Parts: sequence; C-alpha cells; structure tokens
Amino acid sequence: MNKAYVHGYDPRESRRLQDQASTLVQLLHSDTSYPAGSLVLEAGCGVGAQTLTLSRNNPEASIISMDISRASVLQARGKAEVAGIENVDFLQADIFRLPFQPQSFDHLFLCFVLEHLPRPMEALTALKDFIRPGGTITVIEGDHGSAYFYPDSIAAQRAILAQVELQRCAGGNAMIGRELYPLLSKAGYSSVRVSPRMVYADSSRPEMVEGFTRNTFTAMIEGVREQAIELGMIKPEAFDEGIRDLYRTAEEDGVFCYTFFKATGVKG
Amino acid sequence: MNKAYVHGYDPRESRRLQDQASTLVQLLHSDTSYPAGSLVLEAGCGVGAQTLTLSRNNPEASIISMDISRASVLQARGKAEVAGIENVDFLQADIFRLPFQPQSFDHLFLCFVLEHLPRPMEALTALKDFIRPGGTITVIEGDHGSAYFYPDSIAAQRAILAQVELQRCAGGNAMIGRELYPLLSKAGYSSVRVSPRMVYADSSRPEMVEGFTRNTFTAMIEGVREQAIELGMIKPEAFDEGIRDLYRTAEEDGVFCYTFFKATGVKG
Repeated sequence: MNKAYVHGYDPRESRRLQDQASTLVQLLHSDTSYPAGSLVLEAGCGVGAQTLTLSRNNPEASIISMDISRASVLQARGKAEVAGIENVDFLQADIFRLPFQPQSFDHLFLCFVLEHLPRPMEALTALKDFIRPGGTITVIEGDHGSAYFYPDSIAAQRAILAQVELQRCAGGNAMIGRELYPLLSKAGYSSVRVSPRMVYADSSRPEMVEGFTRNTFTAMIEGVREQAIELGMIKPEAFDEGIRDLYRTAEEDGVFCYTFFKATGVKG
Repeated sequence: MNKAYVHGYDPRESRRLQDQASTLVQLLHSDTSYPAGSLVLEAGCGVGAQTLTLSRNNPEASIISMDISRASVLQARGKAEVAGIENVDFLQADIFRLPFQPQSFDHLFLCFVLEHLPRPMEALTALKDFIRPGGTITVIEGDHGSAYFYPDSIAAQRAILAQVELQRCAGGNAMIGRELYPLLSKAGYSSVRVSPRMVYADSSRPEMVEGFTRNTFTAMIEGVREQAIELGMIKPEAFDEGIRDLYRTAEEDGVFCYTFFKATGVKG
C-alpha cells in the first residue's frame, strides 16, 4: 500500500490542516481553564500533543507534564521549546511511582492516557493522592465503539475491531470513553460530571471530513494494518476493504460519527 | 412482509411515546421556531406526541398535522383539545397523496416518521412540492446503531438488533438518523445542515436514566418482545437477557448513550 502523504507538505496545506486540528482542539479543550497560579500535573503527556494547547489555554498556570517514555518526553520538551512555551516542565516518570509529595498539585489532567493502561482505576486512585483537597481531575478519552457511519459497512466495523483487539492485547481499552463516569466515581472522586463531545462529519463540514474522518480516525485505523495482520486478527483483504469503506464515508454523501468523553471530578 | 407500524397502537405504547416526548422536548425541539403567521405542515404526526410541543413553541404559527392512521389522528386531536391547543388542525392523509395545492406551506416538519417509510427519499421529494420556494424542512430521527452503553453486553446488542430487524421487515429503517444528510441532499433540498443531539445518561443525571434509558429506550425495545420472538428473530431467553442488561446500564455505575439527528434544509 502506498504510504506517501497524499496532501503533500506545502505551507498552505499545513495551515489548512492546522485549522482542522483546531476544530477538534476547540471541541475537546476549550473549557479546560485553570486559575492563575495553579499547579497542574499532566499525566501521560506522550509527545506533547495536548501539552501545547493546555499551556496556551492556561498561560498563568504552571504545568508539569510527565510520561513514562523518555523518548516521548524529550520530543515533547523539544516541541515546547520550539513553540516558545515557558510554563511547562517535563519529566520522565511512572504514574504509579510519582516523585512528588502527596497533595502537591491543584489540578490533574489526563488526555488519551487511561485507554492504554491495564489498570485505569488503580491509576486514578494512585494519582488522587497528589491532588490537594478540593483540587480537580480532568480526563479526556475516545471510544471506538462510538464510531458509526454512512454508508454502513461490516468490513469497516471489522477493521475497527481489529484495532480495538490490538489495543486490548496491549493491556488497553479503546472503548473506555463510556466508562469514565464509573471509573472516576469508583476511584473516589466526587462531583463527577461527564460530557460527551461528538464529532459529526458530512460534506457540509469539509474540515471535519478531512481533519477527522480521513486524517485522524481512518489514518489511525490504517496505521495498525501490519500489526493486526501479523497477529492474525484480520486478513489483509478484509482489512483493506474495511479501510476503503471508511474512506468511502468521507465522500460527498458520506457521514461519520465519533464521540469523545470528557470527565471532571473533585478530590473531596 | 408485515407492514404494521412497529411500535403498535395500544394505550401503554401511547403513554410511552408521551413520556419520551417530554424528556426529550428541550433537546430536540427548543430550536424549532417559526415566524408569526407561518403555515406549517407536520407530516406523520402520529398520536401528536410532538404536535403539542410544536404548537406551544410556535403559538403565532398555524399548523396542519396529518397522519395516515385515522385512529392516531383522532387521538392527537383529542389530546390537543384537552390541552387547549388552538393553532393546529388535524387531518388523515397519505404523505404520497396530500390533498393540498403545491407550495401551500412555509415550512415542513417531520419527527420519527422517515424511519417507518419504505421510501424515505421519495417521501421527502414528494413533500418538497408542498413547500413554497425559500421555505424549510426540519427532520428529526433517531438511530439505534448509535446506542452503546456500560456495561457493554452482546445480549443487549442482540435485543436491539431484533428491534432493528423487525422495523426493517415492516419496511422501515431504525438506523436512519445517520443518513439524513444524504437523504435531504439527494431529495433536492439545499443548505442542508445536520446537528446530532446526543443523549448521555449516567447516575449524575437521574432524569435521563429514568426518562430515557429506562422509560424510553429500554421500554421501546421491550415492547417488541412478542413480535420478535414470534417471527423467530430471537429466542425468549436471549431477548430477556438483553433487556436485563439494558436495565443494568441504568444502575448506579451504568452509562447509556444514544443520538438523535436533526436536519434542516431549504427548498431552493
């Protein structure tokens, strides 16, 4: 399969893709706002995909962003330096062995992290120790079981399921979004509120079709092709048919739906 | 093929439809507002579950509400009289043989109608003739493929699928919500815009758990039990297990998600 980037890299195209990305950023992050002077822990920052947004939306807060992968932390730090970000410190650490005093942070922020953890509730419980009483937690996760589309396609559903199974085999849960309410509640947070953030894409919203259906969701599923086939989760032809059908939903008369979940809770 | 209305016509069913309407009124209808003096056609009004809301939200508009079932029209009219509604006239008629002059109406309104029609696009095309140029159409539909929940359950999914199949055998499509954009576009409406209305229920929102998860969605699936079993679509034990699992999602740690779609278009 041709893995060349179909849109090329010219500056106008990059700007357009940036605009598309900002639609999603707006949807997920615009209401995360911390008071000036807050100390915020971003757990599982990865390569810093959300860190820059968090930093820009909260210029008066101090943020510590950590990840278990040193390589990711280095990349995130580099990205922040290039962007001139000054209110974030980066740190390699394990969520289950954080090098902080209890109650060190006013707020805790996790985005696309729990979906990769074998023990998400234990992680939430462990992290709670590091929030001061009255401080908050914010969690954002997707849910691949929330993906549906027109035209519907069993092949596309199977390709998505291959990704879900792969993630499960790696100890994760690609359908964790719907579980945020019970997870945060059982981990002992109070005033838990979940708000779904649904992405709806049809050709009256070309930025969502391009930015989400094609370049985010389908590209992500496509990205697990070799692994899924290698582990015998799906046959090459079946997977490729599924991917074709996912791209089909991005055509003139297609529709694509997906929902992210954002949860907040308070440490009592 | 059994062409009966999948939800049936008994009194308990009518009450369920009424409860459903009140829970969802705000979410689905609050932004349907017609200018004073407008003449509005509500096609497929059924027992008037949406008619009263439409009337109350648009007291200065004149509404004609029609349905193919005389029994439903009589019930709707009775309900409107009891409620003291004065701006609605009721009429028994067939969407494909309306007794009106072309371009008689300023606006057209359909709610939970297309899902029951074997030829929804043809219905939209036929109805377009009765809108004046520049007038609008508003369509609201659910999509049973948008239902997902925690705890997840294959039995619950199967019970839902039995309802979807029943509706399909009656010529309908319980997953039509996602299709509204292509349907209205292909029927020749312009400026088509679809906005999803997601219902999210967890125990922090008890009115949604009670009003939607239990009394609307699960009650509706439960309502097709005899029919689904009789037609051999599912075994009794399997169906009952599915219903139990749907009610399970209404417990303390449960979560239920469902999405309605609201589309508007303009007659060019």
